[in-house]
Amino acid sequence: MIYPFILSGGAGTRLWPASRKAFPKPFMPLVDGQTLFDKTIERIKQLPSAGPLTVITNESLRFLTADALRGSVAKQPRLLLEPTGKNTAAAIALAALDLQIRAGSDALMLILPADHLIAEVGAFSEAVQVAENVANQDWLVTFGITPQSPETGFGYIERDAQPLALEEGVAYRVRKFVEKPDRETAQAYIDSGRYSWNGGMFCFKVSTILAEFERHAPELLAACQVAVEHANQIHVAGMDMVEFKADDFERMADISIDYAIMERSERVAVVAADMGWSDIGSWTAFADASPSNAEGNVFDGEVIAINTNNCLVRSPHRLVATVGVENLIVVDTPDALLIAHKDHAQDVRDVVAELKARGHESHLLHQTVHRPWGTYTVLEEGERFKMKRIEVKPGATLSLQMHHHRSEHWIVVNGMARVTNGDKVFLLNTNESTFIPAGHMHRLENPGVINLVMIEVQSGDYLGEDDIVRAQDNYGRS
Amino acid sequence: MIYPFILSGGAGTRLWPASRKAFPKPFMPLVDGQTLFDKTIERIKQLPSAGPLTVITNESLRFLTADALRGSVAKQPRLLLEPTGKNTAAAIALAALDLQIRAGSDALMLILPADHLIAEVGAFSEAVQVAENVANQDWLVTFGITPQSPETGFGYIERDAQPLALEEGVAYRVRKFVEKPDRETAQAYIDSGRYSWNGGMFCFKVSTILAEFERHAPELLAACQVAVEHANQIHVAGMDMVEFKADDFERMADISIDYAIMERSERVAVVAADMGWSDIGSWTAFADASPSNAEGNVFDGEVIAINTNNCLVRSPHRLVATVGVENLIVVDTPDALLIAHKDHAQDVRDVVAELKARGHESHLLHQTVHRPWGTYTVLEEGERFKMKRIEVKPGATLSLQMHHHRSEHWIVVNGMARVTNGDKVFLLNTNESTFIPAGHMHRLENPGVINLVMIEVQSGDYLGEDDIVRAQDNYGRS
Repeated sequence: MIYPFILSGGAGTRLWPASRKAFPKPFMPLVDGQTLFDKTIERIKQLPSAGPLTVITNESLRFLTADALRGSVAKQPRLLLEPTGKNTAAAIALAALDLQIRAGSDALMLILPADHLIAEVGAFSEAVQVAENVANQDWLVTFGITPQSPETGFGYIERDAQPLALEEGVAYRVRKFVEKPDRETAQAYIDSGRYSWNGGMFCFKVSTILAEFERHAPELLAACQVAVEHANQIHVAGMDMVEFKADDFERMADISIDYAIMERSERVAVVAADMGWSDIGSWTAFADASPSNAEGNVFDGEVIAINTNNCLVRSPHRLVATVGVENLIVVDTPDALLIAHKDHAQDVRDVVAELKARGHESHLLHQTVHRPWGTYTVLEEGERFKMKRIEVKPGATLSLQMHHHRSEHWIVVNGMARVTNGDKVFLLNTNESTFIPAGHMHRLENPGVINLVMIEVQSGDYLGEDDIVRAQDNYGRS
Repeated sequence: MIYPFILSGGAGTRLWPASRKAFPKPFMPLVDGQTLFDKTIERIKQLPSAGPLTVITNESLRFLTADALRGSVAKQPRLLLEPTGKNTAAAIALAALDLQIRAGSDALMLILPADHLIAEVGAFSEAVQVAENVANQDWLVTFGITPQSPETGFGYIERDAQPLALEEGVAYRVRKFVEKPDRETAQAYIDSGRYSWNGGMFCFKVSTILAEFERHAPELLAACQVAVEHANQIHVAGMDMVEFKADDFERMADISIDYAIMERSERVAVVAADMGWSDIGSWTAFADASPSNAEGNVFDGEVIAINTNNCLVRSPHRLVATVGVENLIVVDTPDALLIAHKDHAQDVRDVVAELKARGHESHLLHQTVHRPWGTYTVLEEGERFKMKRIEVKPGATLSLQMHHHRSEHWIVVNGMARVTNGDKVFLLNTNESTFIPAGHMHRLENPGVINLVMIEVQSGDYLGEDDIVRAQDNYGRS
């Protein structure tokens, strides 16, 4: 058996505005409707030896992650929740220590990023089977991706010319890791036949990786041991969640597993495979990984294209017309629009930096915000009013709350609501509405078995999210 | 005295998506917030001899036009309402016949398009004063625009080398009109010094233009005489409106004044002037007429521009980020987005043609729809709900109506409403709401002196605009 771990970390700033900090790249739908997170889970399900799944992510993404996991994995998934992102070395040390407690030191770990695309799932499965055998012989196994082109944005792995003498499986000792070579060097690497792209996937025994941490990063390991000891284990939404303490994270080094361990260890092997891998690292990579039409265009949404070639247009909600353009990236979202030349796809992160500098929320939030009880979407804001579409999951309950400065008007458009309005509790059916004056304690529940969909219209002089007094909350927010 | 007439006709399809059939080019705000219609009215106000204004437009645009006129002209404006657009010859014949009844055959007419920009209002005023004198000597006066570049999309006017021998004013007999020459010919025209652009502006006496219609287009004139005899004169919203009958329009030829009269008449003179004219005929012309930044960009809205040059970005409601692009036109509206290369700005009309072919409403309507009582904007439509922002003018009253399939929830966010709901009539104050069940007769009024702003949430199985039974209407729609 092998224990899969999904590292669900970064914000994917080069995929703004579809990917944001609060709704990052793994959860962004691709042209086929699936997300990279969905695809990662499907890939794991294909593995014959896969044991229970663990996801390591930021605590702010717990409900989004739980929603994505729900119903998709047979065995109960486990979430390791980081108060702040501390790079891959800390995440993997925490994962190994957590698994050691549950399954012992001989347990095998498979580390997978949440946001990579692998077209050839069969080749991936075969590589994992080889890696299991090699890892059982106390090697740290990295997966080497057969390079398709002299990319300058990736890390490369150089291996020995001859394979390791192993009891089972074919792998090579890693000679060195190289970060982002220039194009000429990259081409020389490809020509040599001894280099792979570093795909950021790993397989090893708990004992092997912990021994290497002990040798090469003892302080980080010690900090992670403290964090695991202090961690708070809870069971929410049918999942085990491990909450680490922010204080314990402050002491941890922000360092990658490559830099902390892989580049220093003598026990690193590479299993090379050609698996149709893409890191979907930019909109150009996204376009390359999506089906295109005869003019080389990738269209997701309603597009009227006149004299348009080699463009990516992603617009799920609105009509887009393109006239006489080529090599453009157009990404439309309810609150922000990106238009970039494909040659400048890497510079999209500069937009996110500029948004941060301007204090703009568009790098952070989408209009749809995930909450433990469901979602809300701000449909429109204007002078003295704000409108939300609120979707409450069956059985879920919002906090008992009060606003000083706004009245709220609730209209049920689907399902049934149980409403607390001052001292009254009543049911509100589809097409019915109620009115919560400012200063009234109120609560919304979905007592039914289908999603409750409501339109909330707020009106008043001040409509900030911070005008809220929570008297009671099922999710520990009061 | 001179009677100004504004021809407010075409849809401006090359300015889609900001200009649409139901909200055409004259009413589209420019970067300075004013519309071309506003600017045309301001231009007329500068004329010392200007008499009462008449606007000739489509009957579907009467309330939009009335709103634009309200408060902007001292004297009572008059609207000639065409059931269908029949080009400039019919519009001018109708205008002349209508004025003949009111002011006699010696009255002077000034014909101005609603959708041109004139930067030098002083030069325009001077040209009009010259034209008045020439027109009083029984000439049909056209205004010739001093050409700035060898444009191939405009009409050109060739004049005699020597001016006419007139009692007063300097003008030239027109030798011929030329439509859209090639670039070489256009350059030769400019070099000759005897050609002007045809700006589509005219000045003549009622008797002169009617005599020329009698000579060159007697059938069209006869049809227009019948239409004027059958026309329905009403007084609405403080304005005289003349409604022509659709039947009478069927017989009229769809022909321009240039083709029907100007190119055939012996009595055409040109007053040439350099007045900073632009027809704002495309987004490129729009950009050229707008202030730009150091990189040649025209930005209207919040834009994050990285490595962006010579672009027009118009996005009043959403953030736009541009990365590594140049010579692009980006026009964002709530329901449609245009991205075009400046060299292909003329082809934007092909988008409108394609929308028509697809039966798409985006060529027709904006999300904000003008009604006699005010406006409504569809904010969001979804399964089983539709939301509108409704703005009702002071004193205005919507029809008494009923819907079979939807309930309506009304929330007042500004002002005060008088609501009829079944057999009850009551006042609804800011931040209050009411609920109109399906099948209930209801009516909305604004009894106050400030605009009433309401959010309406419709919910039900069917939400089409045609589910309406009108029992009584102040605007003749029941």
